[in-house]
Amino acid sequence: MTDAVSSARPTIAVIGGDGIGPEVVAEGLKVLDAATGAQAFDYVHYDLGAERWQRTGEVLPDSVMAELAAADAIVLGAVGAAPGSKAIPSGLLERGLLLKLRFAFDHYVNLRPSKLYPGVTTPLSDAVVDRGPIDFVVVREGTEGLYAGVGGSLAAGTAAEVASEVSVNTARGVERVVRDAFERAQRRRRKVTLVHKHNVLTHAGGLWNRIFTAVAAQYPDVTTDYLHVDATMIMLVTDPQRFDVIVTDNLFGDIITDLAAAVTGGIGLAASANLNPSGAFPSMFEPVHGSAPDIAGQGIADPTATISSMALLLDHLGRREQAAAIEAAVDADVAQRGAARRSTSQVGDAIAARVAG
Amino acid sequence: MTDAVSSARPTIAVIGGDGIGPEVVAEGLKVLDAATGAQAFDYVHYDLGAERWQRTGEVLPDSVMAELAAADAIVLGAVGAAPGSKAIPSGLLERGLLLKLRFAFDHYVNLRPSKLYPGVTTPLSDAVVDRGPIDFVVVREGTEGLYAGVGGSLAAGTAAEVASEVSVNTARGVERVVRDAFERAQRRRRKVTLVHKHNVLTHAGGLWNRIFTAVAAQYPDVTTDYLHVDATMIMLVTDPQRFDVIVTDNLFGDIITDLAAAVTGGIGLAASANLNPSGAFPSMFEPVHGSAPDIAGQGIADPTATISSMALLLDHLGRREQAAAIEAAVDADVAQRGAARRSTSQVGDAIAARVAG
Ligand SMILES: CC(C)[C@H](C(=O)O)[C@@H](O)C(=O)O
Ligand SMILES: CC(C)[C@H](C(=O)O)[C@@H](O)C(=O)O
Repeated sequence: MTDAVSSARPTIAVIGGDGIGPEVVAEGLKVLDAATGAQAFDYVHYDLGAERWQRTGEVLPDSVMAELAAADAIVLGAVGAAPGSKAIPSGLLERGLLLKLRFAFDHYVNLRPSKLYPGVTTPLSDAVVDRGPIDFVVVREGTEGLYAGVGGSLAAGTAAEVASEVSVNTARGVERVVRDAFERAQRRRRKVTLVHKHNVLTHAGGLWNRIFTAVAAQYPDVTTDYLHVDATMIMLVTDPQRFDVIVTDNLFGDIITDLAAAVTGGIGLAASANLNPSGAFPSMFEPVHGSAPDIAGQGIADPTATISSMALLLDHLGRREQAAAIEAAVDADVAQRGAARRSTSQVGDAIAARVAG
Repeated sequence: MTDAVSSARPTIAVIGGDGIGPEVVAEGLKVLDAATGAQAFDYVHYDLGAERWQRTGEVLPDSVMAELAAADAIVLGAVGAAPGSKAIPSGLLERGLLLKLRFAFDHYVNLRPSKLYPGVTTPLSDAVVDRGPIDFVVVREGTEGLYAGVGGSLAAGTAAEVASEVSVNTARGVERVVRDAFERAQRRRRKVTLVHKHNVLTHAGGLWNRIFTAVAAQYPDVTTDYLHVDATMIMLVTDPQRFDVIVTDNLFGDIITDLAAAVTGGIGLAASANLNPSGAFPSMFEPVHGSAPDIAGQGIADPTATISSMALLLDHLGRREQAAAIEAAVDADVAQRGAARRSTSQVGDAIAARVAG
């Protein structure tokens, strides 16, 4: 493993994780191989997540961090226990693994595309869907805000407890992600919507507003738009067609992208990329969904989100044609999905066959 | 005005506010009168909002605060300029008026019912709607969290700027609102869902979790449930029937209730109460929607949300039968709404006539 980086083939670090994570990742790699030829990448698998912690007490050893840092990209399934579970301290794996990777590898662009494929069941009414195609991306800031891990508890566990969480936003952090959104909009329908809540969060909102306005001035061909996060909820279910690129902070992005995924057919389809566009650190590709322990081990999880994330990975590595081949195969597969249930590997096989064919 | 408090009739302070606020409030009072008889309350109108600030530079003078504090209840339309407007500093009216009232009068229960009336257009598909009746309430904490106004900016306006917002949560503040949710659930379908994001916001989430668990133990007849705020987004559009009472913090509550309003027919219908259950301060009743300056002055705003808020007001003042009369009239009016557009006052007239008849 130690000389993987110096080999000719790019190394992809693979973290299957917990629950359905390893199941969907297997299908992702299957399709990746189909798109690139089986020998394109060196895969290095890492055993991380709830099970490893329960077995060894380790979440993410420094030695593993060092290896991951040297990889060309990271594929992650999902980590974490069920939301109500008491087996693992809340936040241990999220903070100690997923967010640690996002922060340490400076994944400041958390990219989450949402597209309603023809034929996909959506919880939205025909009247809303018939307004036109739904196709937007959320550029979620990934390294700041309420995810910074700044906060604490005073008198924890007593009747006098005060618990705080601090949202930290920097001009540098906001500027780089806002700029990414404008760059992306230029390659799309040229519209960027800033989502925030500046009427209440006046300090952070003021910073986002000022930087958004300043960056926008440098992209006169891009239309801009502002929505409060609460109003965004309404628009996502009544007029999702209005969105092209949404840029927002870490927590709002988390909330918006789950709703966006739901209205475009569910988190079984929602891909994501945690990008470090500078290339200083490996970017990470993962489905938006979690580990779903309730359906783990049954071979029924939908691997499509992970497979689509592989297209984002190839795109990031400059393999645009191979990325497009996966996208086209997913499009075609999804369009002809009927009511019949397929297993996780059947979906992977079908998409891989389309990519290879 | 100064002796209103000592008169036999309860005093209701009325703040029409900006945009469509005064228009919808007029209809609310019309229906209130129809339900109670014209002389039941003394209405005292206060001229507050964007226009007053632009004219006088005053947002909420201390003398007005003192009068409001002595009222038996407050009716508020909406305050604030359009989201993109530069005429009024962002947050000035929200922080200086709306939130000031919620905080000064300790409105710790921000109650927002969501019910899909038969016949109402929803952005949700028939498949979702046909699962069963949608009828839940959100008990949003109203006096803490990210709304505390704690935060600041360092090096504001420079490339070195750091802006923070602090979510402050106290055991006392969380306990009282969680208890209210359980009390309410006992009068409903006996289920409380806590919504938070304790896997990331570990300090605040830990506090909410611990208190929720402790309070739940005192209500063994109430079922409990936990969802992360992002997963809540998905459930609200795919399975809103699963909710009875949702309890959550101030910001999550803001976000959830706009989505809840949207899926149950739009913010034109969404009522809210800012309650100080102890009675130490007047409670405040307002529609969830904002001032909508784009449609102000045209007489086309839907006053239903404000009218339903008047039912919450009567309920709070112990006038349960009169509250029920308004609810029934709104139910009946909404059920027979067709495609024909009525003016703001036509809707008010129609509901008032049903209440009186
Ligand atoms: C698991 C959790 C920490 C994570 C987040 O909140 O970012 C997830 O919800 C996501 O959206 O990737
Ligand atoms: C206007 C704004 C300050 C307010 C809030 O965020 O609480 C509004 O959105 C609401 O939900 O009542």
